[in-house]
Amino acid sequence: MIDPIVRRPGSGGIRWSTGKALALSTLTGLATYSIGLLSNRDAAYKASNSSILRDRTVVPKYGAKAELDKALPEIREFMGEDGITTDPEELERHGFSSWSTYNIDTRPIAVAFPKTTEEVSKMAKICHKYHLPIIGYSGGTSLEGHFSATEGGVCVDFVHMDKVLDIHVEDLDVVVQPSVGWQELNEVLKEKNLFFPPDPGPGAKIGGMVGTGCSGTNASRYGTMRENVLNLTVVLADGTIIKTRQRPRKSSAGYDLTRLFIGSEGTLGLVTEATLKLTVLPEQTRVAIAPFESIRDAASCVAKIMATGLQVGALELLDDVQMKVVNDAGDQARKYDEKPTLFLKFSGSPAGVKEQIEKVQTIAKETKARSFDFARNDKEGADLWSARKEALWSMIASQQNENDGVWNTDMAVPLSKLPMIIEEAKAKMDKTGVLASIVAHAGDGNFHNIILYNKNDPAEKAMVEQAVHELVQRAIELDGTCTGEHGVGLVKKKYLVEELGEDTLGLMKKIKMAIDPLDIMNPGKIFDFEVAK
Amino acid sequence: MIDPIVRRPGSGGIRWSTGKALALSTLTGLATYSIGLLSNRDAAYKASNSSILRDRTVVPKYGAKAELDKALPEIREFMGEDGITTDPEELERHGFSSWSTYNIDTRPIAVAFPKTTEEVSKMAKICHKYHLPIIGYSGGTSLEGHFSATEGGVCVDFVHMDKVLDIHVEDLDVVVQPSVGWQELNEVLKEKNLFFPPDPGPGAKIGGMVGTGCSGTNASRYGTMRENVLNLTVVLADGTIIKTRQRPRKSSAGYDLTRLFIGSEGTLGLVTEATLKLTVLPEQTRVAIAPFESIRDAASCVAKIMATGLQVGALELLDDVQMKVVNDAGDQARKYDEKPTLFLKFSGSPAGVKEQIEKVQTIAKETKARSFDFARNDKEGADLWSARKEALWSMIASQQNENDGVWNTDMAVPLSKLPMIIEEAKAKMDKTGVLASIVAHAGDGNFHNIILYNKNDPAEKAMVEQAVHELVQRAIELDGTCTGEHGVGLVKKKYLVEELGEDTLGLMKKIKMAIDPLDIMNPGKIFDFEVAK
Repeated sequence: MIDPIVRRPGSGGIRWSTGKALALSTLTGLATYSIGLLSNRDAAYKASNSSILRDRTVVPKYGAKAELDKALPEIREFMGEDGITTDPEELERHGFSSWSTYNIDTRPIAVAFPKTTEEVSKMAKICHKYHLPIIGYSGGTSLEGHFSATEGGVCVDFVHMDKVLDIHVEDLDVVVQPSVGWQELNEVLKEKNLFFPPDPGPGAKIGGMVGTGCSGTNASRYGTMRENVLNLTVVLADGTIIKTRQRPRKSSAGYDLTRLFIGSEGTLGLVTEATLKLTVLPEQTRVAIAPFESIRDAASCVAKIMATGLQVGALELLDDVQMKVVNDAGDQARKYDEKPTLFLKFSGSPAGVKEQIEKVQTIAKETKARSFDFARNDKEGADLWSARKEALWSMIASQQNENDGVWNTDMAVPLSKLPMIIEEAKAKMDKTGVLASIVAHAGDGNFHNIILYNKNDPAEKAMVEQAVHELVQRAIELDGTCTGEHGVGLVKKKYLVEELGEDTLGLMKKIKMAIDPLDIMNPGKIFDFEVAK
Repeated sequence: MIDPIVRRPGSGGIRWSTGKALALSTLTGLATYSIGLLSNRDAAYKASNSSILRDRTVVPKYGAKAELDKALPEIREFMGEDGITTDPEELERHGFSSWSTYNIDTRPIAVAFPKTTEEVSKMAKICHKYHLPIIGYSGGTSLEGHFSATEGGVCVDFVHMDKVLDIHVEDLDVVVQPSVGWQELNEVLKEKNLFFPPDPGPGAKIGGMVGTGCSGTNASRYGTMRENVLNLTVVLADGTIIKTRQRPRKSSAGYDLTRLFIGSEGTLGLVTEATLKLTVLPEQTRVAIAPFESIRDAASCVAKIMATGLQVGALELLDDVQMKVVNDAGDQARKYDEKPTLFLKFSGSPAGVKEQIEKVQTIAKETKARSFDFARNDKEGADLWSARKEALWSMIASQQNENDGVWNTDMAVPLSKLPMIIEEAKAKMDKTGVLASIVAHAGDGNFHNIILYNKNDPAEKAMVEQAVHELVQRAIELDGTCTGEHGVGLVKKKYLVEELGEDTLGLMKKIKMAIDPLDIMNPGKIFDFEVAK
């Protein structure tokens, strides 16, 4: 049954379409397909039919310039003249990112700078009334077009909401606003002998980190954002303020709304406050690097370490190309062996760290490491780790001219499949002839292909896109994912249906429609609705 | 066909469908209340109004005997004569539990025994057609009335779906069916040097463990179900089969549906398959116990251990009453000091375990432990730990007559609030005069009051209920939760709104309505819909 149109009474002249909207998904039928290595069991679920998930479709109509003109004075009434701007420079700054794999031509039509949850709520009510899209913005370091303004709308920059509100040392948690950066937070927490483990790209802030469900190098030991957030305060599309959960470390009190918002990329609401789980700083942290003749040897070292159950702090793999790029960037104190190299972090008590290093050193020898250097103090550790930290930057530094684009891919596969897909990725990129390196969070089965290509050469761009697409398909075949930590954004929407199937995606859409029926919260991200023409 | 009546209240009274449903929540207005220690910031959110969350209500109508008579032959067509039964003994066995804090008078009207996900799907389609409620059943060890058949319906016993389907040793995960018990699973995994950490009550099975989002004594170190499940295969209300996620250890691919189902208590779908994260068995595990003069001393020991960041395997606290009950039960090899006692587990390499024990021993001395006994081998460890393991059983054994009921409460608070609330709990229970002990997962701020009372004495029952209610309110005041691991079920619905507020609960209901518009999946659990009379 096609439940025709969801009509809502208009406000300010905006109306939901009153024509004969058609649920295109039900007209076109469901693409059935089989997926390489997946069992029949799995393949069947990806193509089944559902009455619940496909009985409605939304026909969003978004407010534009005319509606903004009505909204502006209402918003300025409580946020002041500086609370929202239409300055073209600000629109550009909030709608384009040179970091992102993908940019689009449209920009937000206003940028707001709220100072409190209540301001965000009041503003959302007004945007809701005029059907103006709302796009959250904190660090702006997203790689997949997460804050691209596909439908114009109001970008909400949390720059003024950057406070650490409460540190509960004995409870091992902290309450923060969305524009607190993870690096700045850890500076504050250091004095309390605590830290917040997730460590994505430099510059990332809590709001965006919740949005993408990100992680970083510490995840294999300490988990991702999903394991390190206790509760969230969220403003929904109509301005409703909810708090997902109280502050105990464990709870079985109803649906896990906290995790529903983590990774929802701003499509379900704006996070205005977060309580984060903290970890006591390890007594000691030591770093080691071990170059190998081949990726396979390095991977076999990782597998053996994982099989011991040793809780290594971080297990990072850089390929030969990446090591060469690091050397070429020339800002390192030393020259590295230009071979696939493992970067390892050990943490715990001095005796525990010593024991871990000895065990890993033995495994490294068994798996034919060319050498095994470990830092005896923090300074040496920082020097050794810097090559890992500078991986992306050194790729960017190697850009020859302004046409060069950097594409930082992100896939994850079950642990045992990582060496196979990394080798395939290298072979595929070699064929394209572009410069491409591999950086992997090997303890998580998560890896990035950092690709340098001429973004103004349509043929080269298409070739790279095709290679990435094939790689993603391969990750999915191996029971992996199109994104381990960067999120879907604009760029990976097309892969998500290949990964999860129509019905699983249908369930996500159903939830989205239930919470944000006007589709004003960061529209066009994660999935598209089948909009009637 | 019975149609759910859905109506949008509000000016103009736009109707989404036909019928006379009334959204009682909008008629009665919203209760506003203030909550003790919560900040004004939080209190405000609990009482705000929402247009999105309250614009619809459902009026479920459930199929009964007449509809079952139509469904039975259709179900038997593919599940066989034995696939579904109406035998009164089976109905009783699947609708009543002597473990549960709460039982009701109604029973399921049929019990089904599916063998595959496909059978579950086909059966759900038929139940959906006839609006027959569907209630999942695996271990039957739930404490809060989770499988009580509030509206009759079909209990789905997964007894035949008890297989370990795939063990991926190198990927550190396992694929299981819902009736695999955690204890049996760990027997199988032991051979592979692996284990699955969540350890709730004996007899619990994966299906129910996903449902309640449970945990156990290992959670402070290894996390709860929420941190240890990679993906789920779920049959939705209309028979749609979805798989929430692929199998990598990390993913940012869209909404976190896995966690949405974990803790949803069967109200959103039936889990028919789960991929679980595994952990390598520690080389060594040692156990220690330390009695203290007071709960406060024991708690201060816990706080100091937590502040060191030591990853103790388990940190359990039993009060003096519980220790006496253990001694009285008389099935222990030794007599314990009848004082508040910490039970600790240490795991890791032999050297690591030795170091941990020494450090904790020093802290225990500083915090005035009366003694500190640690087991030198596995046999001694099992003996020491058995008092902890037998806590609930020994309370049950102390029942004087068949009127005695056991009420096993479950609350969690931020770590620093645990000693305070435990002392208050003891004082409150002392006043009632009933036998009540405390067992706490102290490393999580989660505790249980195990209360023995005369369930057939209305006055005593009311007094205990009142004491528990006040205790829950206190936990909520302290920014805690009415359930740390047992779930909401029937019993804690009334507390959930006090804990989370109307809007947060409204968001949960909105999601429920979107996925299960007929409200046939385990109706009456977690929350009630405002049904028009």
